[in-house]
Amino acid sequence: MKANHHLPVAVDAMGGDHAPGVNVEGAIAAARLDGLRSVLVGDEDLIKDLIAKQGAQALLASGELSVCHAAQVVDMDDKPALALRKKKSSSMHVACELVNRGEALGVLSAGNSGAMMAIALFVLGRIDGVLRPAIGSTMPTPKGTSIVVDAGANTECLPPYLFQFALMGDAYMRQVLGIQSPRIGVLANGEEDSKGTELTRATLELLRQTDLNCIGHCEGRDVVSGHVDVVVCDGFSGNLVLKSAEGTASLLLQLIRQGYEQGGLLTKLGALFSRPMFRKMKKQVDPREFGAAPLLGLMAPAYIAHGSSDAYAIRRSIARVHNQSERDLSTQLISSLTKWQHLYGEGTPSAVSENQNN
Amino acid sequence: MKANHHLPVAVDAMGGDHAPGVNVEGAIAAARLDGLRSVLVGDEDLIKDLIAKQGAQALLASGELSVCHAAQVVDMDDKPALALRKKKSSSMHVACELVNRGEALGVLSAGNSGAMMAIALFVLGRIDGVLRPAIGSTMPTPKGTSIVVDAGANTECLPPYLFQFALMGDAYMRQVLGIQSPRIGVLANGEEDSKGTELTRATLELLRQTDLNCIGHCEGRDVVSGHVDVVVCDGFSGNLVLKSAEGTASLLLQLIRQGYEQGGLLTKLGALFSRPMFRKMKKQVDPREFGAAPLLGLMAPAYIAHGSSDAYAIRRSIARVHNQSERDLSTQLISSLTKWQHLYGEGTPSAVSENQNN
Repeated sequence: MKANHHLPVAVDAMGGDHAPGVNVEGAIAAARLDGLRSVLVGDEDLIKDLIAKQGAQALLASGELSVCHAAQVVDMDDKPALALRKKKSSSMHVACELVNRGEALGVLSAGNSGAMMAIALFVLGRIDGVLRPAIGSTMPTPKGTSIVVDAGANTECLPPYLFQFALMGDAYMRQVLGIQSPRIGVLANGEEDSKGTELTRATLELLRQTDLNCIGHCEGRDVVSGHVDVVVCDGFSGNLVLKSAEGTASLLLQLIRQGYEQGGLLTKLGALFSRPMFRKMKKQVDPREFGAAPLLGLMAPAYIAHGSSDAYAIRRSIARVHNQSERDLSTQLISSLTKWQHLYGEGTPSAVSENQNN
Repeated sequence: MKANHHLPVAVDAMGGDHAPGVNVEGAIAAARLDGLRSVLVGDEDLIKDLIAKQGAQALLASGELSVCHAAQVVDMDDKPALALRKKKSSSMHVACELVNRGEALGVLSAGNSGAMMAIALFVLGRIDGVLRPAIGSTMPTPKGTSIVVDAGANTECLPPYLFQFALMGDAYMRQVLGIQSPRIGVLANGEEDSKGTELTRATLELLRQTDLNCIGHCEGRDVVSGHVDVVVCDGFSGNLVLKSAEGTASLLLQLIRQGYEQGGLLTKLGALFSRPMFRKMKKQVDPREFGAAPLLGLMAPAYIAHGSSDAYAIRRSIARVHNQSERDLSTQLISSLTKWQHLYGEGTPSAVSENQNN
C-alpha cells in the first residue's frame, strides 16, 4: 500500500474513555498544528457539533478534516468476534473500510483493542504468510525507543509465531523508526541460552539461522534498558512486563508526589524548582508519546491508542499513522518473510493478499 | 523448628559480588546496631582479618559474632546440581548444615541463588507435602508490601504448584508480615476470569474452593499497586515482572538524575531541596529493604539476598531471617497444606520431614 499524503487518517471518533470529545479535539490539533489530515468516523451530528464548538468548521471547508457517519459503536465489553459480526456499521468497522477502499491511509482507534484487532484483521487483511498478527508496543529507553512484540494479541504461541514477531519488530524499527540493525532479544528469565522455556529456546534457534541482529535471551528490564531494540515474546508475557513497567512508574511518581506534599517549606520549594525537570522527564516516558501501538502483520497501518487517551495522545497517534504510511513497512516485512520463509513454514508471502477471514 | 533467640543466623560470608567484605560488615552492624547474632561461614582467616580491621573483635569474644570455617566457595556460574554434589564444604553448604544441626536458626546467602536453592532444599529439607519450594520476593506498594511467589525457582509449573505457591505466600504474609487476610491474585494478562492461560485459570479454580481471600486474576501492575498482597505465578512470569519493575525504576531515577544534571541553577537548587524527599522515597522502594527473598516450603528460614548487596542490605537481611524465625511460618504452612490437601493431591503434610533428596 503506497503512501499518499493527500489522504487522511481514519480516526474512530467513538472509541476510548473520553470519546468522542478528545478524539475530535486531537484530530483538530493534528490538522492545525501538524498539518495532518483526519476523517472522523462516528455519529456525524455529534462530531460536527463538537467541531463547531471548537470553532474549527474552516477545517471541514478546506478538507483538512472530514466526517464519515457510522451508526454503531463497539463497546468496551463487546466480545471481539461479536463486535466484528454484529456491528458492521460500527465506527471501528467503517474506519477500517475507508482504508480498504483507499480513502484513508491508515486507521486509529482508542476503543476496545481486541475488537479493533479482529475488525482490522478482517477488513484490512493480513499480509500473506503472516501466521499471527501482533501488537507492537513502543517503550522509552535512556537512548530512544524499544518495541515489544507481541504486546498482548496472542496469549499462547508457537516458535514460528515468535520468529515472525521478531521479523515484524525488526521491520518496524528499520522502516518506521530508522534503526539500522535492530538488536533483537527473546524475552526470558535470564540471558543465558539455557534459560527460558522450550518456546523461547526454539525461537532463538530459528533467529540464529538468519542474519538478523539477534542478541539472544533478554530480561524484563530490557523492555526499557536500551540494550535491546526489539523484545520478542508471547502476548501473555508482553502484557505482564508492560503492565509491570506501567505500575512501577506510577508507584514512583505517586511516592514522589506524596513526599513533596508531606515535606516542609524547603522540600516544597524543591518541588517548585524541579518542575521543569519533571516535565521533561515525564515527556520522555509519557505513555501519550509511546502509547499508540501498531497492529503488525496487516496490509495497512492500524494503531490502537490507550483507552484513557487525551486529545494530545490522539494528536500524537494520528502523526504515528501518517508516519508509518510514509514508510514502506509492508514491503520490508514481505521481503523479510519471503527471505526466511523456509524457517517458519509453507506459503509464499505476497502483497496481493485476500482478506483472510472472508 | 522453634525460634531460639540465642541462636545466630548462618551467613554465607563468601556469597555475593562484594563478598566477603560487605557480608562481614553487615553482620557486624546487625550485632552492634540491632543486637542480632550471626555466624559467618567461610574462609576463617580472611573473615577474622576483616573483623579485626573493623575493630570488632569484642563481638567475637562476647559471642555476638562467630566464625565457622568452610573450605570451598560456590561460584556464580556453578551449576546448582554440581555445586550441591561437588562442593560439600562450600560456605553455602556448611551454613545450611549449621541450621540443620540446630546451631543456627536460619541461613542467608547473597551468592548463586540457584545453587542456594538446591543446597538449602537438600540440607534443610522441604516441608512434607510441598510439591515445589519457591522463591518469594517482597515488593513495595503505596500501602506496604506485596509478595510475588514464585519469583524464579520454577520455570514451568502445574496448577497444584501455583496453588501451593498461594498457600506459601498467604502463610508468609499472615505469619511474618502480620497481614490478617491476604488478598491473593493469580498473575495474568487481564483481570477477567476468561483471561490468562490454562495454568492460571485452573489455579483460580483450585483457590476458589478454599476460604482464602482470592480476588481472581491480577495484572503486572499489581506487583506494586497495593491491590494484591500475594501475586501467584510461575517462576518465569515472576522473573519477568520483577525485572521489568526493577528496570523501570532504574530508568526513571536515571532520567531524573540526568534532568537535574542538565538543568539550570534553579533546577539544581530544586535537586538540593528535593534531597530529603528522594531519600525517603528511595528508602520506600529500596531493593536493599525489599531484596532478601525467602525460600518458601523449606523446614527452616533460608533467604537469598541480591548479589549486589552492600553491608546495609546484608544487615537488613539478617534481621529478616531473625524475624521469620520468631514466627511460626512452617506450622502455619503445614496446617494450611493439610487443610487443602484434597485439592492438590496425595500425601500427609507433616513437620517431621526427612530430607527429600537424601
